[in-house]
Amino acid sequence: MALNALGREIPESIGDMKLSPFRGAFATAPEGNAIAPKIRSHNPGKVKLLASISEAIDKVGLKSGMNISFHHHLRNGDFVVEMVLEEIAKKGIKNIGMRHSSVFTRHTEALTEHIKNGVVTSFEGNLNGPLGKYVSENPGQRPVVIRTHGARTLDLERGNMHIDVAFLAASAADNAGNCNGVLGESKFGPMGFAFADSWYAERVVIITDNLQPYPCTPISIPEHRADYVVAVDKIGDPKGIATGTMEITTDPTRLKMAGEVIDIMERLGLVSNGLAFQAGAGGMSLAVVKFLGDRMRERRVVGSFAVGGITGYCVDMLHDGTIRKLLNAQAFDISAIDSLREDPDHVEISHYHFGNPHSRSCVTHHLDACFLGATEVDVDFNVNVNTHSNAHLLHGSGGHPDAAAGSNVTFIMSPIFRKTNPIIRDSVTTVTTPGETVDVLVTDRGVAVNPRRKDLLEKLAGMDMVPIEELRDMAYEQTGPPMELEYTDKFVGVIKYRDGTVTDVVRHVKPEEYE
Amino acid sequence: MALNALGREIPESIGDMKLSPFRGAFATAPEGNAIAPKIRSHNPGKVKLLASISEAIDKVGLKSGMNISFHHHLRNGDFVVEMVLEEIAKKGIKNIGMRHSSVFTRHTEALTEHIKNGVVTSFEGNLNGPLGKYVSENPGQRPVVIRTHGARTLDLERGNMHIDVAFLAASAADNAGNCNGVLGESKFGPMGFAFADSWYAERVVIITDNLQPYPCTPISIPEHRADYVVAVDKIGDPKGIATGTMEITTDPTRLKMAGEVIDIMERLGLVSNGLAFQAGAGGMSLAVVKFLGDRMRERRVVGSFAVGGITGYCVDMLHDGTIRKLLNAQAFDISAIDSLREDPDHVEISHYHFGNPHSRSCVTHHLDACFLGATEVDVDFNVNVNTHSNAHLLHGSGGHPDAAAGSNVTFIMSPIFRKTNPIIRDSVTTVTTPGETVDVLVTDRGVAVNPRRKDLLEKLAGMDMVPIEELRDMAYEQTGPPMELEYTDKFVGVIKYRDGTVTDVVRHVKPEEYE
Repeated sequence: MALNALGREIPESIGDMKLSPFRGAFATAPEGNAIAPKIRSHNPGKVKLLASISEAIDKVGLKSGMNISFHHHLRNGDFVVEMVLEEIAKKGIKNIGMRHSSVFTRHTEALTEHIKNGVVTSFEGNLNGPLGKYVSENPGQRPVVIRTHGARTLDLERGNMHIDVAFLAASAADNAGNCNGVLGESKFGPMGFAFADSWYAERVVIITDNLQPYPCTPISIPEHRADYVVAVDKIGDPKGIATGTMEITTDPTRLKMAGEVIDIMERLGLVSNGLAFQAGAGGMSLAVVKFLGDRMRERRVVGSFAVGGITGYCVDMLHDGTIRKLLNAQAFDISAIDSLREDPDHVEISHYHFGNPHSRSCVTHHLDACFLGATEVDVDFNVNVNTHSNAHLLHGSGGHPDAAAGSNVTFIMSPIFRKTNPIIRDSVTTVTTPGETVDVLVTDRGVAVNPRRKDLLEKLAGMDMVPIEELRDMAYEQTGPPMELEYTDKFVGVIKYRDGTVTDVVRHVKPEEYE
Repeated sequence: MALNALGREIPESIGDMKLSPFRGAFATAPEGNAIAPKIRSHNPGKVKLLASISEAIDKVGLKSGMNISFHHHLRNGDFVVEMVLEEIAKKGIKNIGMRHSSVFTRHTEALTEHIKNGVVTSFEGNLNGPLGKYVSENPGQRPVVIRTHGARTLDLERGNMHIDVAFLAASAADNAGNCNGVLGESKFGPMGFAFADSWYAERVVIITDNLQPYPCTPISIPEHRADYVVAVDKIGDPKGIATGTMEITTDPTRLKMAGEVIDIMERLGLVSNGLAFQAGAGGMSLAVVKFLGDRMRERRVVGSFAVGGITGYCVDMLHDGTIRKLLNAQAFDISAIDSLREDPDHVEISHYHFGNPHSRSCVTHHLDACFLGATEVDVDFNVNVNTHSNAHLLHGSGGHPDAAAGSNVTFIMSPIFRKTNPIIRDSVTTVTTPGETVDVLVTDRGVAVNPRRKDLLEKLAGMDMVPIEELRDMAYEQTGPPMELEYTDKFVGVIKYRDGTVTDVVRHVKPEEYE
């Protein structure tokens, strides 16, 4: 065990997995060269279009013990994870490592079954709530590895995460594998997560329900990255992929908090020409983006770009000239998908481009502000988005740490408690985002500014602020102190920071602790 | 010395350069994995925009003995090669290897000077006529390595050509290096050649005369591939970059030959829906494309795509619906540049995508037909485009072998003799494109079909054809047999086929042979 820079105990290794402790948000530099897959060749007339997923599994030589990947742009409408795993299971292949970007609630039943049957024995990638709960209560031999969006591309590039076969859904593709996500009934927007898989996986299978004549354009992933193409009936359910325009919060307290974020931005001089921000989904983030757009219009300010999960609110800003560009690695609604296809100033980017710190530069490092949520925040401004206070691993890290590290001002919005659980507390259950990258905490009981940011404190002088410790005290007054957890010696998860180091581990809670 | 599959004597090595003899158009498979540059990191606030090329040379640590690269999309209007070499020379750096895609006539004087001063001591990349003549008469220690467009990307990918620093011109870029070639006064179209350099060079410097606010879009090369950005006054002279619409041939014999190509295509059933062809520049290729467009319109045929050097004739076909898509790795005129920016069905591709056979697939392998020229053709249908009959290395290979190998039907158009020189002959001076990939030879004295293509001969039964040997005899009747050349033991050039093997070497002609 070694203490990392956050004071968390990190084992040197868990099984065959070596862990490198977090040393500071920008303290760990990369070493060595990128890895790359075996070079393949082909002759004219090579047939890449296969009749079924089963045939693709045979052709790529998928065997027990190999790792496979999926992107999650089809979100809760995705059929591909289930279809592929079903075929793998039918063939008697076992001990598969999932190296997906994320899975959703709809995958819970199938994945739980495949875990029980030994088809899937390890996960590196984000889990959804119900599957996270299952894994938290029934940890496998190998902990789940959770990475930020940036870290996933970085660990792929340097070979710390290996993918044997990437099964990549496309809403339009040709018989050679040129493909995109913006055309067809199952359109889902940019292929942001899939780029790194297409670069670093040994084998790439494109799965589409919309086979186009060659060449299919626009080309997100080009044919020279694709080994095979499979046309299926349906890659997903449009209702689960993009749900129209997401709903803005209607809760008055949350609307007030969103408004406070905008007021603070204005005091900080951020509501000015050239503003770059990270948008987000979720009711409160949507409210911030909407209010920000309104305030920018009022002040006749033109922003430079928005990035992140793009929604219709960002598209509205693009259309009325309130923002010059949208950089889209992930679309959250139909408006974002259609605008990506139609608007020249709305462009697709990879998650490597989005947030990889071990690159020559990335988009999040150009941000003025980002607006993020939390499951917990501690008095050192460390943020948890991975576990709930019962140490259940219920969420991925997403781009949270990537945006926080890159933004000049990182806003966290959170109530001070939820039900009987204090959210602002002495110590978060799990550190996702280090406090050194978090600047302004907006809660339902006041605003706290990270004392490291003397520049912000100066600019905000005169505004009502509270020390974060007071917010914690108010929370504890309502709920009592956080529940104490007792752990077994098993590990449920490893939380990898954007540079590949470990901010925290998620331990297995003693069964009697569960309600 | 070993004989390659074309009967050419290829040394096992020349100096430190090992040569692998050509074994057949698709006989050599790749081995091993791709190489990749050292991983670099950055923090937010990293300043990539430098004040001058001189500063960029210092920052990337360019030293004597290193290799640098340039793309040639600015063509004969390019200022960048000269600007960079001048700064290198000023710093006293010597023994630089040029690893450019091509240089043009305008670079001759400066490059000759840098050769004489020892600043530049080796070339891997295409040379233009005047510089080729100089190097042919004054071979360096190391022969010039000529590669096809596909081979250049393949040898970069597997580390057979190393670039320390790529200096990549962009007609629009932001201060982080996101850039393109379609905006600004020096617009040149796609960045086709530059992609592989941006992936595999150790260091990448973007040079622009059109600095845009971040983020510059469309993004051809993303910031995560760019180490530094330099803004200069002018990267090129628009008059030399794109010369408006190129001139179609007015020579009646050549127009007749172009018409014959179309007639043969029709007999072969190629003028039908879904036709895919490679366009080209040069008066006769332009005529073929124009006539083909006319014939397709007459027959109400809609082609699938055109690729290659894109010109206004292809753009016209796109605009009137005669072809569905244009895949553009290189633009030859303003119309092609503007259409690439404006037309959604006209998309940029890399030269890796264009023609790398050691990939999972490439565009040229989907071609039905291509229309190519020749400096010589021999009775085995081998084609020379590199040297003239005096063995002067005057031209690169371009995409000629890539298109020929990929196309179902490869047309070569050539007169049987030029001045006193037989063009159809027993043996080409230099093999660029192997005869096994060449199908139909259209000359001013008749059409010859490669006897290997029994299928074509059958379809063309009834049409006037001549054995290629008769075309040779007719040529010799007019000019006498080819001049005999006497060589020294020096090597001027190595001609690398698209799979990295050597089709031929260019030997140094005894000085008294020159006129």
